[in-house]
Amino acid sequence: MARAIRLAEQGLFTTDPNPRVGCVIVQNGAIVGEGWHKVAGCGHAEVNALNAASESVQGADVYVTLEPCSHFGRTPPCAKALIDAGVGRVFVAMQDPNPLVSGRGITMLREAGIAVEVGLLEAEAGNLNPGFIKRMQTGRPLVRLKVAVSVDGRTAMASGESQWITGSDARADVQRLRARSSAIVTGSGTVKTDNPALTVRFGGSPEDFRQPIRVILSSRLDLSSDAAIFQQPGRTVVATSKLSEQFASALPDGSELALLPNLEPDTVIQWLAGQQCNEVLVESGPLVAGSFIKAGCVDEYWLYMAPKLLGSDARPMHVMGLQTMAEAIPLKLQDVRAIGDDIRLIYRPEGA
Amino acid sequence: MARAIRLAEQGLFTTDPNPRVGCVIVQNGAIVGEGWHKVAGCGHAEVNALNAASESVQGADVYVTLEPCSHFGRTPPCAKALIDAGVGRVFVAMQDPNPLVSGRGITMLREAGIAVEVGLLEAEAGNLNPGFIKRMQTGRPLVRLKVAVSVDGRTAMASGESQWITGSDARADVQRLRARSSAIVTGSGTVKTDNPALTVRFGGSPEDFRQPIRVILSSRLDLSSDAAIFQQPGRTVVATSKLSEQFASALPDGSELALLPNLEPDTVIQWLAGQQCNEVLVESGPLVAGSFIKAGCVDEYWLYMAPKLLGSDARPMHVMGLQTMAEAIPLKLQDVRAIGDDIRLIYRPEGA
Repeated sequence: MARAIRLAEQGLFTTDPNPRVGCVIVQNGAIVGEGWHKVAGCGHAEVNALNAASESVQGADVYVTLEPCSHFGRTPPCAKALIDAGVGRVFVAMQDPNPLVSGRGITMLREAGIAVEVGLLEAEAGNLNPGFIKRMQTGRPLVRLKVAVSVDGRTAMASGESQWITGSDARADVQRLRARSSAIVTGSGTVKTDNPALTVRFGGSPEDFRQPIRVILSSRLDLSSDAAIFQQPGRTVVATSKLSEQFASALPDGSELALLPNLEPDTVIQWLAGQQCNEVLVESGPLVAGSFIKAGCVDEYWLYMAPKLLGSDARPMHVMGLQTMAEAIPLKLQDVRAIGDDIRLIYRPEGA
Repeated sequence: MARAIRLAEQGLFTTDPNPRVGCVIVQNGAIVGEGWHKVAGCGHAEVNALNAASESVQGADVYVTLEPCSHFGRTPPCAKALIDAGVGRVFVAMQDPNPLVSGRGITMLREAGIAVEVGLLEAEAGNLNPGFIKRMQTGRPLVRLKVAVSVDGRTAMASGESQWITGSDARADVQRLRARSSAIVTGSGTVKTDNPALTVRFGGSPEDFRQPIRVILSSRLDLSSDAAIFQQPGRTVVATSKLSEQFASALPDGSELALLPNLEPDTVIQWLAGQQCNEVLVESGPLVAGSFIKAGCVDEYWLYMAPKLLGSDARPMHVMGLQTMAEAIPLKLQDVRAIGDDIRLIYRPEGA
């Protein structure tokens, strides 16, 4: 199963909106086939493993990181493929998180007389797809807030100058974080001040990653068509809540409009869920960051802390006023590691 | 030598203003005596080890973490004691950092025909006494700035409320940090707002630790005698730069006055050096912290980062204005570790 999880990880940047899944087929103690899901519409992990099998899989053991599907979607059901192939046993790391179909694939296998064991390396398999699982269970994506911050908790000078707080290794890590995200959310202020591309800039084949949807929250729709974000491959969406003819004509070339009831974090997240987004990355200035934090809409805080002091006039991590210690927002540290000269800290809300 | 360093560490909270030193005597491959320096005026490590020896030390190997002294101070020179005892070889981890006497003890030993090897575990031995070494080499103590801070870089609510940002484990670690310090520096604002005792509160025998000198920087000398800091064992010093008769009468009971030319960090540090302070801990509000940082007077930043957000209205880590990224103060991470639910980060200025 550990091997199946390693295989699934190869789809980290490509399977969206589908989950990352890996599958290993073992016959007489030797791996005879393995596969992983690469991209939506192409083969699922189980079918790829069956197709890759070098010898008969009759009576074989199958290790798969997620419950095989039971329904006809873009591809035939994997449970049926396993049954047709005559495999002997199936080890499933975790059930399908979608409550509507959870358990059906397992039932289909068992009804065909195949022994099924569920739960092997379940936590590790769940870590492959935190956003997909959350969306299936709650209808909402996983939201990460990424901040590049100094030791004194600042994200830019008062002038807006912020390039670069963190080092090249940390910025490369952010590229991987972007690449696994379905969408990146920012504010119009960041577009104007930093003029970011908000793209994944990997070397290598463009088949190896997608560009997340770039979403700009803009109440005034006063964005310049010249901004770098509108010159990039993939979708750029301008989300706004007020629309007049004047506004519509101001929509920059190469962008789409999302007209929302308001620009509250909750509303934006609902819209992203409708776009089948699993993992959403907020890369914004302190205003948007503060609104997401205050609304309780951040599932993970990713802090890249650079070894420097920017001073007390520099810009804060977020704009969010609290009055008493009792109001302080409690977090729980999930991970800390050195990345180049910086350190990366991952926190989740306490109790989450 | 590693054993000698472990022994020396037992003096971490007591040897001040002397260095922490350990000594092990080995005869025919077996430890026959060991000792460490506990408190100024009592025996040095080498003499304690000689006195503790269970059999003859004639021709023995001696491991000592610091060059044996060559001069008569409060105790006779240790080099002479080793010569008189007839030891065979002496392994010295590091030379005396005082340039006026460095190498003299080694020379005295060699002139008596004793083989001396210098440099074994030198870095580890140096870590025993960073403040003593700095003071001997530069005439100034090592200055640490300790800050309890939230993930968003805040040290108190706007109201001043700050108890408690960090958890009990981190606060216990601060007790150990205080206990190894010669002095604790704070500002009058902190005395008024937080009313801290700034004492070491260990259980166990009072012989096992000292109280660092508490130094309050007070330009107006407007402190209440009722403040907790004046009710504690050990010295409390009010440092000020302006004195009138009115001020002198306002000096709280149980405190001493230090009249300085000004309250600039440099001046305060010079005064602390004159008090034979090796390691100085700044535990202050953002104004004093900012003045020490801006003056380049912080040798180590000790950040205890609590897993919570205090919001953007909360107080900053320091008050120190910088305008451009080029002015940002570069640091280097020395250590990061989890302490309870908090993490402790130790930074030094880059290049230090």
